[in-house]
Amino acid sequence: MSEPAPGPVAADDPGYTAGAVDLLGVLAYGELTAFDRLAEDARLAPSLADKVHMVAMASTQFEHFRLIEARLAELGTDVMTAMRPFHRPFDSFHAHTAPNSWLEGLVKAYVGDGFAADFYREIAAFVDERTRAVVDEVLAEDAQAAFVVDRVRAGIAADPDVAGRLALWGRRLVGEALSQAQRVAADRDALTGLLTGTDERPGMDLAAASRMFSRLVEKHAARMSDLGLQA
Amino acid sequence: MSEPAPGPVAADDPGYTAGAVDLLGVLAYGELTAFDRLAEDARLAPSLADKVHMVAMASTQFEHFRLIEARLAELGTDVMTAMRPFHRPFDSFHAHTAPNSWLEGLVKAYVGDGFAADFYREIAAFVDERTRAVVDEVLAEDAQAAFVVDRVRAGIAADPDVAGRLALWGRRLVGEALSQAQRVAADRDALTGLLTGTDERPGMDLAAASRMFSRLVEKHAARMSDLGLQA
Repeated sequence: MSEPAPGPVAADDPGYTAGAVDLLGVLAYGELTAFDRLAEDARLAPSLADKVHMVAMASTQFEHFRLIEARLAELGTDVMTAMRPFHRPFDSFHAHTAPNSWLEGLVKAYVGDGFAADFYREIAAFVDERTRAVVDEVLAEDAQAAFVVDRVRAGIAADPDVAGRLALWGRRLVGEALSQAQRVAADRDALTGLLTGTDERPGMDLAAASRMFSRLVEKHAARMSDLGLQA
Repeated sequence: MSEPAPGPVAADDPGYTAGAVDLLGVLAYGELTAFDRLAEDARLAPSLADKVHMVAMASTQFEHFRLIEARLAELGTDVMTAMRPFHRPFDSFHAHTAPNSWLEGLVKAYVGDGFAADFYREIAAFVDERTRAVVDEVLAEDAQAAFVVDRVRAGIAADPDVAGRLALWGRRLVGEALSQAQRVAADRDALTGLLTGTDERPGMDLAAASRMFSRLVEKHAARMSDLGLQA
């Protein structure tokens, strides 16, 4: 994160609290749907050992869900309520990006979730320290990332033609993610308000927002490159 | 457990070690397939809150898998190797007992897994203390049991006709489980040997085995009754 950390937020600022709750709600529903997807993709695993890796990733998502649920409870909000506004965009994202193969599932877990995580981390720069600590913990790089990179690279080595298709897939994932993010931004003023700030709270100006997008794009390209794919 | 605990087992008895490894292997594969089934059944959940309960149950199975994997490592065996003999009976059991509804899935999780757990606990009376502690921990009653009982009872209250069908389902689950258990017993002398004992190790005589079966049947009936079903 190269932006300077904003000043402390006012705990009694209802707009701020609503934004933090939205951020945690997005994350919670994202973890739940990721669990579901990874558990489903585990069935495509070519070996039982690969399947165990996927199941491990799925279970980690649920541990994260519990952490977020606990922080939301501290903020006085039930996790079910906080997730509600995000059912539709996530379900729609996953319906549009159902993997057709084991490798597509792995690329989605690495590239799609990685992109989303970077974006959430940017927003988390504007929330209170305790919430930010939870966000950072649930977004920390998964212990299984090396496994995903290894399997995708092995898949490409075994069948080089697959690289072109997976590169297209990676771009499509980000396109769909941005499209859903725009929908969320339009609907959820409090969440958008964390980034843009208010009269009382610091936020990003246009130049800072532009730098943020550059960072997101660079990190996405680095992940594609980790996998041996062209961004 | 009403049987007296057997004497200490010889750690250098290869027959014993093979039996303990088999017991842990059965359990590990059982936990993995239970994860898979619960994650799948979570999709049948009528509400997101119900789904979260199912996902919690699934994640717990995977934590158990990790504990078993660690104990197997202490015994010098890779979990993948230890599970291999049990792929076919478990996959066959699940193929024959795929739930057709949310309530069937819940009954399977409670009645089917409960019956299996009782049986594993009986075998665990004959293994070393450390292995037994792991077995007891992974078989301890799930925190979600009350949730399952509540949901099945509510389902029956809403539609009393369902009770008859679920009672048949519960009996079928046990029938299929026993059929697969017989297959495993015939194939895995070391595992059977834990129960029957050897010249060097105590085991069950016929009277003790008969008492064990009575206990299993009684506990099964109690679980069916918890759910409001006739055994």
